[in-house]
Amino acid sequence: MLDSPGALPPEDPRQPETGLPVAVPSTALFTDQYELTMLQAALRSGTAERRSAFEVFTRRLPEGRRYGVVAGTGRVLDAVENFRFDDRMLTFLSEQGVVDGPTLEWLAGYRFRGDILGYPEGEVYFPGSPLLRVEGTFAECVLLETVILSILNHDSAVAAAASRMAVAAAGRPLIEMGARRTHELAAVAASRAAYVGGFNSTSDLAAGFRYGIPTVGTSAHAFTLLHDTERDAFSAQVASLGSGTTLLVDTYDVAEAVRTAVEVAGPELGAVRIDSGDLLLLAHRVRQQLDDLGAEKTRIVVTSDLDEYAIASLAAAPVDAYGVGTQLVTGSGHPTCSMVYKLVARADSDEPGAPLRPVAKRSMGGKSSLGGAKWAARPLDSAGVAESEVVGTGPVPPELADHQLQVRLVRGGSVVAREPLETARERHLAAMARLPMSAMQLSRGEPVLPVEHV
Amino acid sequence: MLDSPGALPPEDPRQPETGLPVAVPSTALFTDQYELTMLQAALRSGTAERRSAFEVFTRRLPEGRRYGVVAGTGRVLDAVENFRFDDRMLTFLSEQGVVDGPTLEWLAGYRFRGDILGYPEGEVYFPGSPLLRVEGTFAECVLLETVILSILNHDSAVAAAASRMAVAAAGRPLIEMGARRTHELAAVAASRAAYVGGFNSTSDLAAGFRYGIPTVGTSAHAFTLLHDTERDAFSAQVASLGSGTTLLVDTYDVAEAVRTAVEVAGPELGAVRIDSGDLLLLAHRVRQQLDDLGAEKTRIVVTSDLDEYAIASLAAAPVDAYGVGTQLVTGSGHPTCSMVYKLVARADSDEPGAPLRPVAKRSMGGKSSLGGAKWAARPLDSAGVAESEVVGTGPVPPELADHQLQVRLVRGGSVVAREPLETARERHLAAMARLPMSAMQLSRGEPVLPVEHV
Repeated sequence: MLDSPGALPPEDPRQPETGLPVAVPSTALFTDQYELTMLQAALRSGTAERRSAFEVFTRRLPEGRRYGVVAGTGRVLDAVENFRFDDRMLTFLSEQGVVDGPTLEWLAGYRFRGDILGYPEGEVYFPGSPLLRVEGTFAECVLLETVILSILNHDSAVAAAASRMAVAAAGRPLIEMGARRTHELAAVAASRAAYVGGFNSTSDLAAGFRYGIPTVGTSAHAFTLLHDTERDAFSAQVASLGSGTTLLVDTYDVAEAVRTAVEVAGPELGAVRIDSGDLLLLAHRVRQQLDDLGAEKTRIVVTSDLDEYAIASLAAAPVDAYGVGTQLVTGSGHPTCSMVYKLVARADSDEPGAPLRPVAKRSMGGKSSLGGAKWAARPLDSAGVAESEVVGTGPVPPELADHQLQVRLVRGGSVVAREPLETARERHLAAMARLPMSAMQLSRGEPVLPVEHV
Repeated sequence: MLDSPGALPPEDPRQPETGLPVAVPSTALFTDQYELTMLQAALRSGTAERRSAFEVFTRRLPEGRRYGVVAGTGRVLDAVENFRFDDRMLTFLSEQGVVDGPTLEWLAGYRFRGDILGYPEGEVYFPGSPLLRVEGTFAECVLLETVILSILNHDSAVAAAASRMAVAAAGRPLIEMGARRTHELAAVAASRAAYVGGFNSTSDLAAGFRYGIPTVGTSAHAFTLLHDTERDAFSAQVASLGSGTTLLVDTYDVAEAVRTAVEVAGPELGAVRIDSGDLLLLAHRVRQQLDDLGAEKTRIVVTSDLDEYAIASLAAAPVDAYGVGTQLVTGSGHPTCSMVYKLVARADSDEPGAPLRPVAKRSMGGKSSLGGAKWAARPLDSAGVAESEVVGTGPVPPELADHQLQVRLVRGGSVVAREPLETARERHLAAMARLPMSAMQLSRGEPVLPVEHV
């Protein structure tokens, strides 16, 4: 069963920061100004120290999607740990008059000392799932809103697209190659999220450097065009990268290129890549041609504007791997999730033992939220298939205790659930395996699990 | 007229790096692995030093869009300047076997020493516009592909959405507040691009810190919920931020909140913010109520799921400012541009004086490109309105010389066109003012200028 708050995963011994160029020394300014002005006003009104619980959840999935995928949790933990205001930042806030002197002083000593519970990375979710709960004083929790949402909204959107593409690919390898289609650092996070969602490798060197994701890549059309003939280019590439390399065969004429490729590299040629044209037709033709040339083991990689539907449409084609760019890093039509970070409970005073009571914005235009800190459980039927997502406040019913979804991520300000990325990737596979079969449908539909509030 | 290669804008005396947490010390790993394997193969085959010209262009605008907006150029210049491989990166590339020893040695000494020409930031563009030309050896130019495209594709997508929203807002101020809906660093670049496209301020403190964009923000629903009553919350905020602050009035009942707000802050209350509900109806009601309460100067800010169409639909409503999040940072349906970086010309040998000759991939599935390094000009009619975008190779016809769009950005590896962000913002306004009126239509249509190839 999934980790529950009582059963913590072992801490990963790796440092949270493996270095530049991707990690940033402080995350404290990835923050909307109003978090700081609220802090200032609360410090002044004496409400800043009231114990509070904020929750991250979404009111809906993107239209037609059947499940969401939690991704970015590991990055959230790094971001919380590195949320510190250094002198240059404080000088900026002071010079711009963002907050007053007492608030600057408070910020100078800030570090998060509260608790965070949440769905572990790779887990699936549904509308209303309490994905993350941040508990502490109002002041220390409110500051984290923007950066937590940035990370989860972006990474989960990419992971959801990746997961659907992985379903469509049905076991064939998927290469993430969307770096050029999104912000250069979003690209690194996208590689990471794609890996969680089921991708196998990335073209992005920074993602390899930062997260240890396997990197791949051989050549582009420019390399062929640089040489006087396609044969020259193929020869140069094989001389440098070996016959196991992947030759790009659609710069001029595909059939001619395939012939030249096998002549140059021999039948042990690793793969050919097709980046344009009618991929279904071309894959069949190229496979036939390769087989006729004795290159039965040479694989075919396709990489042209793929999304989950295009991947699915190639299920019967002799394709050995898919490279996906734009549609992956832009969430296949849904580049962000609609996760929000809401105050759901708070104490009436700053007395240490004051009980938390539920609070909620009144419904208007669909923007209501449910008060109270929530637990969530996903009970299974006798066949091991999830039946529903049960969400509630108060004590967890004993029969659901073993099916809880939230794990403890941060305790008293210390990260207690750092884990290798591989673990999140495996967790996603395990979570998918427990969903009803309809989760595997690419067609539009309702969320595959109903969320029941008790 | 626009800056032409002969008339360089003065260099901005500011340092390219104003500091953390947003700048990164090296951009060299924001690179697809194949750039490096192509380099290795070219070094080995003796083609690496052939002089080459790469061009950035797009084959199409997003469906129905009438113009594109160049943004990110300033970030590209920083990225090119900071494209260096340090020891840790080289160790990574070595340990992972990405490239061989001679290539690592070459990379260790890398810095770009070529030339870059391009459309200046804020300029508009059309399908086929030669947005950027990178000239140098194949080796030094090919490495920059991924990071240049990442930046331009992301930033230009946001700037285009911003520009349309600015058209819709017709002079009313626009606040960028989408940080929580996109990657935390993409958010900073998005603020920057939105500013170029016509936004006035941002909620994102990192964007203020890094780029000097004005930051704004006061409070969220959590602040109201933290307090025992709405009145307590408003009093706390006014006590801390003054009566010129913006009070959020839709946590419970809007009419009651507006009454309380004016009671607490007095008629000098700066603004009220409405974040949910029927904004058109509410804006009229709240305006009437404020006026009845004597708060005629209190402004109304609306911030609920706005895009350019929602903004336009509020044109007749008494709204004083718009806050835009999700739809801005995700490019209002088009989160990336389809810009590509293509080798368009190269020498036949690595002799220093060898002439460049045009090269191009053969057309297949619409992915053809036009060979040769291109110039672009946008002649005006007698009323000062642009007539067409003329793109050509070879010498520029004398009558078009004064209407050229490209400026020199980098000469011999040195950035020569750094400029304040304000300049790009003004350039965008000037470029828009020269487009035919149909550019201001939000409805779907064709690009407003035809691109003529000569």
